[in-house]
Amino acid sequence: MGSITASYPWTTAPLIAGAPMRLISGPSLAHAISAAGGLGFLAAGTDVSTLAENLAVFKTLLSAGPIPGTPPDVLPIGVGFIVWGADLQIAIKSLSELSEPPAAAWLFAPSSSEQLGEWAKGIRDATRNKTKIWVQVSCVADAIEAFKVCQPEVFVVQGADAGGHGRYASAGLISLLPELIDAVRLYSAEIGGGGVGNASPKFIAAGGIADERGVNAVLALGADGAALGTRFLAAEEAVIMKGYQNAVLKAVDGGVSTTRTDVYDKLRGTTGWPEGYGGRGVINRSYVDSTQGVSFEENVKLYKQAEGAGDKGWEDGNARMTTYAGSGVGLVKRVAKAGDIVKELRGEKKSSS
Amino acid sequence: MGSITASYPWTTAPLIAGAPMRLISGPSLAHAISAAGGLGFLAAGTDVSTLAENLAVFKTLLSAGPIPGTPPDVLPIGVGFIVWGADLQIAIKSLSELSEPPAAAWLFAPSSSEQLGEWAKGIRDATRNKTKIWVQVSCVADAIEAFKVCQPEVFVVQGADAGGHGRYASAGLISLLPELIDAVRLYSAEIGGGGVGNASPKFIAAGGIADERGVNAVLALGADGAALGTRFLAAEEAVIMKGYQNAVLKAVDGGVSTTRTDVYDKLRGTTGWPEGYGGRGVINRSYVDSTQGVSFEENVKLYKQAEGAGDKGWEDGNARMTTYAGSGVGLVKRVAKAGDIVKELRGEKKSSS
Repeated sequence: MGSITASYPWTTAPLIAGAPMRLISGPSLAHAISAAGGLGFLAAGTDVSTLAENLAVFKTLLSAGPIPGTPPDVLPIGVGFIVWGADLQIAIKSLSELSEPPAAAWLFAPSSSEQLGEWAKGIRDATRNKTKIWVQVSCVADAIEAFKVCQPEVFVVQGADAGGHGRYASAGLISLLPELIDAVRLYSAEIGGGGVGNASPKFIAAGGIADERGVNAVLALGADGAALGTRFLAAEEAVIMKGYQNAVLKAVDGGVSTTRTDVYDKLRGTTGWPEGYGGRGVINRSYVDSTQGVSFEENVKLYKQAEGAGDKGWEDGNARMTTYAGSGVGLVKRVAKAGDIVKELRGEKKSSS
Repeated sequence: MGSITASYPWTTAPLIAGAPMRLISGPSLAHAISAAGGLGFLAAGTDVSTLAENLAVFKTLLSAGPIPGTPPDVLPIGVGFIVWGADLQIAIKSLSELSEPPAAAWLFAPSSSEQLGEWAKGIRDATRNKTKIWVQVSCVADAIEAFKVCQPEVFVVQGADAGGHGRYASAGLISLLPELIDAVRLYSAEIGGGGVGNASPKFIAAGGIADERGVNAVLALGADGAALGTRFLAAEEAVIMKGYQNAVLKAVDGGVSTTRTDVYDKLRGTTGWPEGYGGRGVINRSYVDSTQGVSFEENVKLYKQAEGAGDKGWEDGNARMTTYAGSGVGLVKRVAKAGDIVKELRGEKKSSS
């Protein structure tokens, strides 16, 4: 096994991946990240009906802005799926129609390990193994289980500080990453490697990383690269409301100003997550009201009003709109081009924040 | 300002501190850590009545095992105080009676910033500034507040993964440490330094660090050193029941097997903590019962029975006893001499775990 950048030869070490944030990580963001030597992920999320179209847009962007080093048989991009809520057959159809499929598929939150296995096999078969399987896990037990069912090429190791959805019961990367890497390697050695996929997986760390220091820290912990979401909320190419983006820029003291909760899922109707998952976001009125006895009906009504108010729905004092972000949010202080963010994370470009 | 090891000249970089764990970090553990080039802290905790005696024991150990590089005017050791519950006047008396006071005092969990200020001033005056002030914080706001009231020589930055007591609202070190360091430096520059204490404080990271990888990670995040508690629970010199120590060795998947809660405080009667604090420990029957409708009275009764059973109170299946540990507990797999642990953490000695 070589370095992870050898598997994605347009990338530069240390590998920086852009997390597939549902509705936010579109073709432009993914292209900008990959064009800077990172690996951009397109978010399919739970709705794969737009995947084919988004991939077509990406290919147009790629024609206009080719990415040197891209192998002839894949697109220099990944696609992220929220497995419990996405339709595997449509995903397979969208992927199998492509002569060059995405280089990676990032699988998150299956409702069972059987389902994870079906997705990994379905995608590998549909793309003749061109699309590498990335599986996101947030504890050792899930990693071993995922290894058993599909031997992913890459584990995305999600620490408790991650924004958006993740497990409530989780550790920060400082503890989780080394324990998980040791456990997977030990298990792989015990079973003698081999099997359905990759017996020597790589590890990409996610959760709370927001600048070059965070990247260097996860490399010291044993990761092969880093995946970031929150930092890219402040990318020029992100598909994001200005109100949301400004709320991210303003938030400080991320461990205090954010929390993991299911309140926003309930208010938005994005329910159906497997048990034990919540979304980390900036604490605002909707959350505070939910803890202070405001009825759910009233809270939904107020939420829908805020939704109708556009960017004002994130305005100080009465901010109510969902503002998913990780606890690294306090390190995100300015909007920049995604490509510049990638270079700053690698330490090639000085941050102006 | 030089490096932090210059301030504690018997130490070797990177600085490894042994956290002052109440009842557990006694003179032998502190001496062994300092003798290996770290900085051992003696836990005074909330009960300072035994401080003078423990310091006397430490001095006896020091006579038998001198620590080269110790300056003539201090003891090569620190003392930790749980400020809200400790008696400042007794602490001052114990410290001022010493011709060589401890090199550092680690102040944790004041009930107000005024109280923190009184402690810092009281100790500095009693020891003619020989004892440096370390203040433990777990969010940016508390760090700025502490800087205002006493300009500590050292901030102990406690991430959410830390074992034992800490704030519920907190981030992992991966986010917290760089944001907090930036904020303190910016604030110090804004006010032009000067003031009551040290305008260029150092930062020691704590919370979830359990091996050399964790130490290197916090250095990458900007820390000047690392403080560890959980790893030293498995030191030969720790004052700890075998049952507790074995439970630490057995626990895996630290983000899942530990949680932060006030259940054990209630069961043990160690109440009085300022609002917002809980203790992270290994989940066992006492915690599970508290979440599953067992009455407090019944839970206390069962707890006291377990207490009476000695090491069996930590035995699988019916473990009930408090088992404070951080989420790095899964990386702690064997008992070792504290000095060897310090050397392993610095990367000088290969871990046999």
